[in-house]
Amino acid sequence: MSVIDTLIETLQVLPGVGPKSAQRMALHLLQRERKAGVDLAQALQQAMLKVQQCQACRNLTEQQICRICRDPGRDASLLCIVESPADIIAIEQAGGFKGFYYVLNGRLSPLEGIGPEQLGLDQLMDRIHELRPKELVLATNPTVEGEATAHYIVQLAQGLVERMSRIAHGVPLGGEIEYIDGGTLAHALQGRRTIN
Amino acid sequence: MSVIDTLIETLQVLPGVGPKSAQRMALHLLQRERKAGVDLAQALQQAMLKVQQCQACRNLTEQQICRICRDPGRDASLLCIVESPADIIAIEQAGGFKGFYYVLNGRLSPLEGIGPEQLGLDQLMDRIHELRPKELVLATNPTVEGEATAHYIVQLAQGLVERMSRIAHGVPLGGEIEYIDGGTLAHALQGRRTIN
Repeated sequence: MSVIDTLIETLQVLPGVGPKSAQRMALHLLQRERKAGVDLAQALQQAMLKVQQCQACRNLTEQQICRICRDPGRDASLLCIVESPADIIAIEQAGGFKGFYYVLNGRLSPLEGIGPEQLGLDQLMDRIHELRPKELVLATNPTVEGEATAHYIVQLAQGLVERMSRIAHGVPLGGEIEYIDGGTLAHALQGRRTIN
Repeated sequence: MSVIDTLIETLQVLPGVGPKSAQRMALHLLQRERKAGVDLAQALQQAMLKVQQCQACRNLTEQQICRICRDPGRDASLLCIVESPADIIAIEQAGGFKGFYYVLNGRLSPLEGIGPEQLGLDQLMDRIHELRPKELVLATNPTVEGEATAHYIVQLAQGLVERMSRIAHGVPLGGEIEYIDGGTLAHALQGRRTIN
């Protein structure tokens, strides 16, 4: 197999990339972006070798403790529990949350063999004892498994914190009520807030 | 900048990849496909360093002379002229064409400063003198610039070959050879018409 064919095949490990896009990517780099291709190879190599889990929050980082956990300006009274590092990026980009995080790297899913151990829930309990937050913010996804995971953690952390909260489920900003699914609408109505 | 951020930024050199997909790709590799990520880094490195232009046909190859030009089973009476290496891959996949190729790596485009020199037309003439094909098959894209390029080569090669042909207009105008289905391409090659 030629190095070009190998490259085209290997590129297909990327999510959303099939044979045609892989070919387009490979030829694009070879014909027009040699330097960028070498840079990409090095960035990949570096990331695959150096990135590990933060020992405090299980987020992805190249240090032992991630940038957020090292930040003395964060509010230690809030601990937000998310399913994946991508969720942290999204919440940080949204702004407004200044507490710490804990990453489950998954959700409870007995069918896939993912239990409390895989989600690092023991380590979460240690983290709660160490950080002593006032509030746990459960920001798992609003799916059946995400809800079950949140529920399980609520049982586990009962009595350890003053307050546990679940992110609000409702109509997304810019969404049209006409097109929102029934489950979301029901949540949005149930969770209505007084505005006067 | 962390190695994760560098990776996310660098991935955006790939065609069709914006910030969101780059983030998804990086996290996918880091969380689930470390080994494949290292393989991809190596495949990229290898390809960027080793792949060059075939000295006979200007196709992409890791050798001095590409696989097709080295194949003694090909029909030396046919020389097919294409705009890009992706076109060769598409024609080879369609099957049915057994001649040699010549890659322009572009098309005449005075506005973009692409003239006969950039397309290696001198080298094409040398190749015609050396190979002595009976027929030139002009398989540039059916666009204004592709047609102009074909026309220009016809003028240039007048008297050097018995026959010059243009792939049939089964290929939709404005389309790109790289993306046409194999059946249409095979028909287009079979139905080529003499143009001199």
